[in-house]
Formats: sequence, C-alpha cells, structure tokens
Amino acid sequence: MAWNTNLRWRLPLTCLLLQVIMVILFGVFVRYDPDADAHWIDERLGRNISSDMDNEFYYRYPSFQDVHVMIFVGFGFLMTFLQRYGFSSVGFNFLLAAFGIQWALLMQGWLHSFHSGYIVLGVENLINADFCVGSVCVAFGAVLGKVSPVQLLIMTLFQVTLFSVNEFILLNLLEVKDAGGSMTIHTFGAYFGLTVTWILYRPNLYQSKERQSSVYHSDLFAMIGTLFLWMYWPSFNSAVSHHGDAQHRAAINTYCSLAACVLTSVALSSALHKKGKLDMVHIQNATLAGGVAVGTAAEMMLMPYGSLIVGFICGIISTLGFVYLTPFLESRLRIQDTCGIHNLHGMPGIIGGIVGAVTAASANTQQYGQKGLAHAFDIDATKTTWTASMQGSFQAAGLFVSLAMALVGGLIVGVILKLPFWGQPADENCFEDAIYWEIPEDQKSLVSRSEDPTLRPTEP
Amino acid sequence: MAWNTNLRWRLPLTCLLLQVIMVILFGVFVRYDPDADAHWIDERLGRNISSDMDNEFYYRYPSFQDVHVMIFVGFGFLMTFLQRYGFSSVGFNFLLAAFGIQWALLMQGWLHSFHSGYIVLGVENLINADFCVGSVCVAFGAVLGKVSPVQLLIMTLFQVTLFSVNEFILLNLLEVKDAGGSMTIHTFGAYFGLTVTWILYRPNLYQSKERQSSVYHSDLFAMIGTLFLWMYWPSFNSAVSHHGDAQHRAAINTYCSLAACVLTSVALSSALHKKGKLDMVHIQNATLAGGVAVGTAAEMMLMPYGSLIVGFICGIISTLGFVYLTPFLESRLRIQDTCGIHNLHGMPGIIGGIVGAVTAASANTQQYGQKGLAHAFDIDATKTTWTASMQGSFQAAGLFVSLAMALVGGLIVGVILKLPFWGQPADENCFEDAIYWEIPEDQKSLVSRSEDPTLRPTEP
Amino acid sequence: MAWNTNLRWRLPLTCLLLQVIMVILFGVFVRYDPDADAHWIDERLGRNISSDMDNEFYYRYPSFQDVHVMIFVGFGFLMTFLQRYGFSSVGFNFLLAAFGIQWALLMQGWLHSFHSGYIVLGVENLINADFCVGSVCVAFGAVLGKVSPVQLLIMTLFQVTLFSVNEFILLNLLEVKDAGGSMTIHTFGAYFGLTVTWILYRPNLYQSKERQSSVYHSDLFAMIGTLFLWMYWPSFNSAVSHHGDAQHRAAINTYCSLAACVLTSVALSSALHKKGKLDMVHIQNATLAGGVAVGTAAEMMLMPYGSLIVGFICGIISTLGFVYLTPFLESRLRIQDTCGIHNLHGMPGIIGGIVGAVTAASANTQQYGQKGLAHAFDIDATKTTWTASMQGSFQAAGLFVSLAMALVGGLIVGVILKLPFWGQPADENCFEDAIYWEIPEDQKSLVSRSEDPTLRPTEP
Repeated sequence: MAWNTNLRWRLPLTCLLLQVIMVILFGVFVRYDPDADAHWIDERLGRNISSDMDNEFYYRYPSFQDVHVMIFVGFGFLMTFLQRYGFSSVGFNFLLAAFGIQWALLMQGWLHSFHSGYIVLGVENLINADFCVGSVCVAFGAVLGKVSPVQLLIMTLFQVTLFSVNEFILLNLLEVKDAGGSMTIHTFGAYFGLTVTWILYRPNLYQSKERQSSVYHSDLFAMIGTLFLWMYWPSFNSAVSHHGDAQHRAAINTYCSLAACVLTSVALSSALHKKGKLDMVHIQNATLAGGVAVGTAAEMMLMPYGSLIVGFICGIISTLGFVYLTPFLESRLRIQDTCGIHNLHGMPGIIGGIVGAVTAASANTQQYGQKGLAHAFDIDATKTTWTASMQGSFQAAGLFVSLAMALVGGLIVGVILKLPFWGQPADENCFEDAIYWEIPEDQKSLVSRSEDPTLRPTEP
Repeated sequence: MAWNTNLRWRLPLTCLLLQVIMVILFGVFVRYDPDADAHWIDERLGRNISSDMDNEFYYRYPSFQDVHVMIFVGFGFLMTFLQRYGFSSVGFNFLLAAFGIQWALLMQGWLHSFHSGYIVLGVENLINADFCVGSVCVAFGAVLGKVSPVQLLIMTLFQVTLFSVNEFILLNLLEVKDAGGSMTIHTFGAYFGLTVTWILYRPNLYQSKERQSSVYHSDLFAMIGTLFLWMYWPSFNSAVSHHGDAQHRAAINTYCSLAACVLTSVALSSALHKKGKLDMVHIQNATLAGGVAVGTAAEMMLMPYGSLIVGFICGIISTLGFVYLTPFLESRLRIQDTCGIHNLHGMPGIIGGIVGAVTAASANTQQYGQKGLAHAFDIDATKTTWTASMQGSFQAAGLFVSLAMALVGGLIVGVILKLPFWGQPADENCFEDAIYWEIPEDQKSLVSRSEDPTLRPTEP
Repeated sequence: MAWNTNLRWRLPLTCLLLQVIMVILFGVFVRYDPDADAHWIDERLGRNISSDMDNEFYYRYPSFQDVHVMIFVGFGFLMTFLQRYGFSSVGFNFLLAAFGIQWALLMQGWLHSFHSGYIVLGVENLINADFCVGSVCVAFGAVLGKVSPVQLLIMTLFQVTLFSVNEFILLNLLEVKDAGGSMTIHTFGAYFGLTVTWILYRPNLYQSKERQSSVYHSDLFAMIGTLFLWMYWPSFNSAVSHHGDAQHRAAINTYCSLAACVLTSVALSSALHKKGKLDMVHIQNATLAGGVAVGTAAEMMLMPYGSLIVGFICGIISTLGFVYLTPFLESRLRIQDTCGIHNLHGMPGIIGGIVGAVTAASANTQQYGQKGLAHAFDIDATKTTWTASMQGSFQAAGLFVSLAMALVGGLIVGVILKLPFWGQPADENCFEDAIYWEIPEDQKSLVSRSEDPTLRPTEP
C-alpha cells in the first residue's frame, strides 16, 4: 500500500484539536499553586514565612531552567546527528515536547496536585512535566526518522498518560524514591520506545541506509545536545529532591558519575576500533549513561566513590551495547533503534533502578542520622514498620512495574501507530527532512534527486 | 552615488569614541547599589536583614543570566538563518548589544536609579539594560543585511535613548505594568525598526535576492537561537517582577503561552503549504510569539488557560503574517522586513499590550486578595483613587505612546541612517558577510566570484 | 622516527588506569560536606539555621552551572574554529575536563577541604574543580591539533597537580585574593601551555598549514563557545566570592569590563585590516580578554568605570597581540600557539594580576567601611598588622609565583610529552580529526585523500 505523506490536513487538525482540548481542560481544572497566586502575601503571613526567598520558586527555578534546556536543546540537538534529518530532529522534538508538557501538567496534576477540584500549578509541576516529556524524547530516539509528526503526537498523548499512571504507582502506591527517574523516565521511556519500534519494524529499511549516518557538521550539532545534557544532568537528578542536603548531594553524585562515565566510554570506544579510533556515536551517547544510572540513587547516600563506580560501569556497558547489542537487536530481534536508546537509557536505566534498590536497602541511621533517615525516606509517624530492606524491595518492585508498563503500553501504542493513515514515510524515504519540510535549495541540489521523494511512496 | 564600504577608519573611530564617552560618564555618574557595595555589611545590619540570601543578587541573578543568553545567543543565532550572513548576524548583534547595555545602564540609571548625584548599579539594572538592548535586537531584525555596523551603532545610540524615555513615560508617568515588555520592548522595537527599514527602502534589493534565503545548516544554527529564546522566555517575563508569587506566576504563564504557540504555529505552517510541509521560518519565529504576547500580563492573574489562549492566537496570527502580510508589506508599503519582526514582535507586541490592559482592567480583590491587589499594582496610601479600569486605560494609553514614539523615533533615525557616508552596502551586496568580514577561503571559492564585492559599489 | 598514532591500547589503558585510581582515592578519602550530608538536618538545628535556603547549595549552584557550561561548551566549541578538528576540539576537551575535575577534587580537597582524614565535598569544590580544569583548557589551546589524547591526559594529570600547589601557595600562604583566577587560572594556564608548546616545537608544521585555518561554519560553531564564555563570565568571576555584596559586585564589574572589551576589539580588528574588515579570530577571542583581566579585582571595589577601563585596554592589547605578537612568537621564539592563548589569557592574565594588586593596595575604609574592609580581605583578629599596601605586595608576589610555577612546570611537562610513544601526530597530519576519529564518509570524500593519513607517519 502506498502511504500518503502529505500532512496538509492531518497535522494541522491534530495540532489544533489537541490544543483546543488543552485550553478547555486548563480552563476547567488548572489554577495557581499558593506560592504562585496573588494571595501569597496572605499565605506567607499565615504560614509565618519570614522572607520572599522561601517561595518555592527560588528553590527550584534555576534547576527547572536547566532541565528545560535538556529537553529542548539537549534531546533536540542530540538527534541532529543524522545527515538529512536535523530539521525533523529539532523541530519534531520541539513539537511533541510543547504538547507533551501541557498534557503532563494535566495528567500529573490530577494525580499529584489536585486540591478542592483544581490542579494547582507551581514550578515543581513544570519540572515534572518536563521530566515526563523527557521519557517521550527518549522513545522518540528509537523511532527517529521513521515516523510522521502526527504519529509522534499520538505517541506523546498515550505515553504521557501511561507515564503518569506508572509514576503514580511507583511514587504514591509503592512509595518508591526516584528523583532523577532512572525507572520512571529512562527505563519506562526506553522500553516503551523499543517496543513501539519493534511493532513498527521495517524490513526494507536498508533502502534508506545511506541517510542513516552522519556528516561532519551534523555530528558537531549533535555534540551541542550531548554537552547540554551532560552539563545540566546534575540539575536534572536534583531538581525535585528535598530542599537542602538532598538537592546538594544529588548534584554532587551526578557530577561524579558523569565524569567517570566519560573516561570509560572513551576507553571502550578506542579499544573496540581496530585502529583505536574514537567513534562519535559513543562520545555523543555513552558519556551520558552515568547520569541515567544514578537517577534513583543520586539523592541517597550513594557516596562520591559509589557514583564513580556506577559511572565507570555504565560507560563500559553502554559502549559495548552500541558495538555489539544494537546490531544484534536489529538483525535478530527486529528492533530498529535509530539512536541506540537501549544503550543510553535502557540498560543504564535498569542499572539505575537496581543501584537505587541496593542503596536504599543498605540505608541506616549511622549514614543518615535518625532524623536524616526519616527525612530522606519520608518516614512519618504512620510508617512504624518501615525498614531499609523493605524500601529496597519496593524499589525493585518499581523497576518491574515500569518495565511491564513500558512493554504493554508500547505494544498497544505500536499497534495504533501501525495504522496506515498517519502519514508515515515509505522505507526508502526514511531519515529524510524533505518529506515533511520545505528544504532550502542548496540541500536539494546537493542531494541531486530529480524527483521529489514525497511523490514516490512505496509499499511498506 | 557609489558607497564606500571600507570601514577602516569609520568603524574604529566610532567604537573608540563611544567607548571613551562611556568610560567618562561611568566615572562621573556610576557607583554600586547598596546591595553590591562593600558597605553592605553595615546596610544589612541597619536594615535588620537576617541572611545574606536576602541580597537582591540571589533573587535576580539566575534570571539575569537567562536573559543575557537570550540577547546574545538567542537573538544573535536566530538571525544566522541567512546563508552568507552568519558572521554579521552574530557579530554585529554582539557589538551593538555590548555598546547598548552600557548606554542603557546610563540612560535608565539617570531616569530610575539616580540617588544623591549617582547612578547606583545592581543586578536589576543589568537586566533592564539587557531588556533595552533587546528592543534594539528586534529592530536589527528588520534591517538585517542592509546596514553597516556603523549604522547599527548609531541606531543603537538613538534607540536606547528613545527606549529609555518611552519606558520612563510608561512606568513612571502612566504607572503602567509591563514586566516582560510587550509594549516597551517588542511593540516599540518592532515599529521603530519597521519605520527605519521603510525609510531605508531599497528598490533594487532583488539584486541580492539569491542570498536572502537559508541553507540547510544555517537553518540549524538559527534553531539554536530560537530554542534559547523559547526556553528562557519565562525568565525574561519574570526577571523584574516583584519577589515571590509575581515572579513565580510570570514564569508559569509564559511557559504555558509558549507551549500553546508551538502547536498552532506548526498547524498553520503545514496548513498553508500546498503539500502540507513545514516551513523553518515559521518554526524559528512564530513559535516565540506567545512569549511576546504575555509580556505585559504574565505577572498578573492571567490564569494558565488565559496564557494558553494568548499563545494559541499568536501562533496563528504570526504564521499568517509570515505567509501573507510580509510579502504585502514589502510590495505595497515598501517595508523590507528581513526577519519578519512584524510577525514576531509587532503584532504579538500589540496583542500583548491589549491583553495586559484587559487583564489589568478586570483585576479584583477576589482574584488577588486585598493585600495581593495592592502589592501587584503598587497601590500605596497615596493612590486612593485607583481602580482596575483606570489601570486598564493607562495600560492602553501606554501602548499608544509606545507606538507613537516608535514611529516618530524611527522616522528621525531612519533619515539619519540614510545619509550616504555610513558605509552601507550596495543593493547587490546586501546579505553578504564578505563586505565587512575577512572570510575563510572555502566560502570564497564556494561563492566563486572573481571580483571582490567590496570593489563594486553601485548606485543606490 | 616514525610515530605510531594507533591508540588502541594506549588510550584505553590510560583512561581505565586513571579512572580506577580515581575510584580508589575517592573511596579512601572523599565524603560529603555537612551541607550535602544526610546529617544536615541535625547540623542545621545545631547551627540554628532558620531556612533550608541557607544551604550553601542555593548560594553557589546557579553560578556553578554557568561555570560548567563555560568549561565544556565554552572552551570546547571555542576551539572548533579549525576546519577539520571539531571532533577533537570538543571531544578531547570533554575527555581531559572529565578526568581533570576528578583529580582536582582530590588535589584541592587535600589542600583545602581536608577534615578528620576526609575530603568533604560541596558545591564550592565542584566550582573550584571546574576552575582548575579551566587552566588546563587554556593550555590545551596552545597545543591544539598537535598532541594526542594520551598526551592531553598526562598533561592534565601534571597541570592539575601543579595548579593546586600554586593555588595553595597563593591563597593560603600569601593570602592573596584571586576569586576569578587572573593569576591562578589564566596566567598560570597560559604560560604553562606556552612553555609546553615551546618544548614541543615542530619545525615542519607548515606541512599541515592548510588545515590550520577555519571554514565558514566552523567559525560559527566557535562563536557558540565565545558567546557562552562571554555571557557566563560574570558567574565565573563571582562564583566563589563571599556571599552577598562580593558576588554581586564581581558580576557587575565583569559585565562592564566585557562590554567595553567588545568595542575596542572590534575597533582594533577593523583598524588593523587594510580594507577595514573584521577578523573572526579577534571577535572570537579578544572580546573575552576583559573577563580575564578583572578576574582578580572583580570582587573588590574596582568601580564600574574601573572595569570599563580594564576592558578597554585589554581589547586593544589582545587584538594587537593576535596581529603582531603571535606571528613574532612563532617565527622568532618558536612558540606555536594554535589558539593565541597568549593574547586571550597570557597578557590579560598578567594585567589582571597587576590590576588586582593595585586595587588591593588602594583599598581603604572610606571605600569599604570598617567592617566591609575586614570582610573583603578576611582580616580577622589575628591579622593586626594588615595594611592595604602589604596586601598589594602579596598580590604582586602571587603573580610572580604563578609565572614561575607555570614556566618550570611547563618545562618539565613539555619534556615528558616530548617522549616519542604518546601517539602524537606527524607534522603533516596535525589539525586533522581523521587521525584519532572515525570520520563520516562525506568528509573523507571532501578531503579526497586516497591514503589513510594514519598510515603515513613521518619523521618528526
């Protein structure tokens, strides 16, 4: 069957419809958090807060902006490494994230910030919405180049929904700690995306293989994404931790883990090349695995050397994954993972969940202090039976729940996205901006194709 | 008349002269704000401030840095979309902004921070100087590619002066609220720039038409600018709001408006292309209109859904403007608007002024609380006659004053810039870095022109 | 002798060995600062701190993130100006910085944060580690394109060690003030790097001269580095100053100095070109000299006009250096300074040290207030003999110590790096990514070399 990639009515109507629904739901449900409401001056006096500085805004806003950069510039540019897919990488990431944050504000709001019939919005909601969309950006990496923007919006709609449910199960029912989202964001996002791309398997994808690689400057653009992700990851993992020492510690641990990860990624990249040369794909991706893998434990007493060890291991595993596992997944399991998210988010996410479970299970009052332990794990008077090993078990359970949600959810969403009317490109036109974008002349002539690729849809 | 574009003496002398004047005026007038002065330790004890954290620095500095990035990377790279004008876009923006912030510190200092014969500088002054220069960056977008750096410095000198006067009229005389500058920055900057480019109309600009478009990688560079503007706009609109809830609310509203704007921009861009393809110009620009249009109302109780509606509308209007209005302005009104600032800053700025007036006019104690309303609109004991509708009227008046100042100011400055000795390029050499920059060899050969364009100035 | 540039075992083993050592040393020595430890809740009650906001994290973290961006994106992209060395510029900078920060945490920790047998880590340590690595990035600029990543790791190991010793002498023995590191970072880093490159002199470097220049888009990538350095420099110079007015003042002074520096750099760049054209090298580098040169005095009462004067002078000297001094150093003194660090960090660093000494020597109680002076220069009850002129003398002594350490250290490290087995490239293969990186096809074909350059090592 020939697919029609002309999105003239489908994309505008999808965008407008979704946005109208957002406006209506925001109108019905969304108001300001007391810290962002004009009544705050009364609130402040009532709660006996001495300084404006104690407004939640000042605790979280700098971290929020760093996370925001990671989602839009970090993920957006990381995916520009493909030679002819830069517009789509940055542009579609922009589109899905802009929709996703709105829907996440609602979904997470209903589940976590619903008071007296209203969702109350503050800066922490903005961070959590960015986090939720982060998991969609991860999944986008698996299907990059093979889906239409309409498919991405549909995927975002469903994935944000499932993410929020999964997050609710973990944080509220299992009472798991996962501040940097090793489980909720990375594991969930990666295995969701991998399942979707497995369902969307394209046997003839080799037809656009020549475009599934980088050119010199596209690799440099991708490094902009890599570096902003790498630099701001300490903010990511500490953004929603408890005020004070927890935020402080999460930033330090993440900084350490990421530093170690760079050295082992470089080491493996060189060791696995027959002439000892480095591969940009590893430098762009595996160097970040350390941030993923301390996403759960960063706010705990993981210790700086613990963080180094986690980063050390993940740089190695992630690079090995790119060299050996990605080709295997594609050839044997029919999983076409464009950006190698299994190596950057999948395996490191699982490691992160395990590290978190082990770190939690070994927490004790000597390390944390009596009050510190209660504060770190939110042990209030009602939790008289809390033990560290129980916390560890629940952490492990959270990892399995995330994996299960990702696989089942990815299966359903993959089947929906397989429907033939979403404007997806033909196999020979994958990884090609010209399908969905008006391209400047120079590129067209460089490409030197006499026919417009949009006119040649082929059998799937 | 043949123009001479060799700036060897004109540019150095202009720069050095302006900088020497800055040094002298700073020497005579500029000192530190108490919060930045070494006497602060006494000040702190005297004002009974309990913590160093209550220094203004900690309330404003993170926002300042975000705004700083918007001015230099945001505006600078946004304009690199032209194929052969990247050096000038980034470089001249850098030059004019570096001069403009100094002159703005003085002008705004005399009008707002003048105490006992001295301008006292603190972090809020730095933000306001960046804001002021933002309006020059907007105007630069209209004349991009058609003026010399000397003309830009002259324009900056005058525009900063007029901006400061206009801002004084609005904020101090009309007592208007405009924290994110829909009126003072965007409306003023856009119509000022449009008037200047109207005066500088070049009937033979078609001679350099082939360079007035993008190439593939120049569009990606421009997306760096777009994204940093988009991501940090919540900081822009909240940077100088009152401490606490106002900053918090302004950030949330801007975040919401910008998110909605992306979806409607994409929708319209696709709907207006005959094959449903997206146009990078719209994605680079129209997605930002939502930030402009909540510049006045973001700190008010606009409500999240109100912000979404504003963003929704502006994404549509801005994209329509690029498709229909910009060609019309050029062909019928002889307004050559290189970057389409009318669509990104002009119309959204006016909408922002109107939204601000309406939001202010409908403010009431139920929404804000008694104390909250007084705090939000600076109603002190002397303003016994204040009513919301009066505030709304003054807001509307502020919009008209800004427009009038922009048109009259632009007219005068345009005439000055039309003088033939500023080193402006000939019509056939517009949008060309090689006029003012030493260009690397590769680019020269790509251009493959046997003659140096600087040797061929032609009749205007 | 033919050098072997195949790093297959040398680079991986170096990376893994260094990282294993880091893990062990961190395990033995590194713990959390009380502000980042889970016991903080007790600490806070014990020290009677009223708000979580008084955790050191909130004073320093936003500045830390800005500094982090400067080191990784700023320095990394600044050096991408070379046409075929972008991967190495960004990638090797990433590698050496990731190792350097770990080693710096240890070295600086032992010397400054060693309590009861442990190094205690907080956010200020992270900033100081980034600072230390900044001096390595500076030195990297001198040898860019001529060394292997193994050599860079060796250089980092030694330079971080020497930096920490030098910093200890200045800050703890001479009790010098140098918050922004004009002496410890820039002077030390620049003259260290220049000495190394002098020892590594390559008489036949002209063989790769055609690659030691930029192409159009590589210059735009470099501007990303320039702008992030320029914008965030106020954070750099204020990051570790005292809380409150000192941080505030340091940011303002740096902002002013950098603004002035842009105008004089542009002026000189145009004035020194026979057709008055601007040179991207000057815009990329000389515009930053103002930030270097207020690195010592920014936190002092330098006054805004004083900052403007410093920036004014440094823009001129730095641009003159690029035009006249760099060619002279290369042809006469056999110092091949790839990035011109002598102009950006060397001379401005020395000027910064002198400005700091003079500003300190002229400090008085009228300017600072009694308490303010004591606070600014850490004059406690034990320092009864402190005078401003004495402080000035010690500042000057600190400058000489830094220079001496740089020259002696550079000599030793240069000799070590001259050993023939580090995988350095042959003269004809300098400034070439393909030696150490797997390069995408397009670039290879553009380069159109039939032979792999790694196969043709030549006599040094």
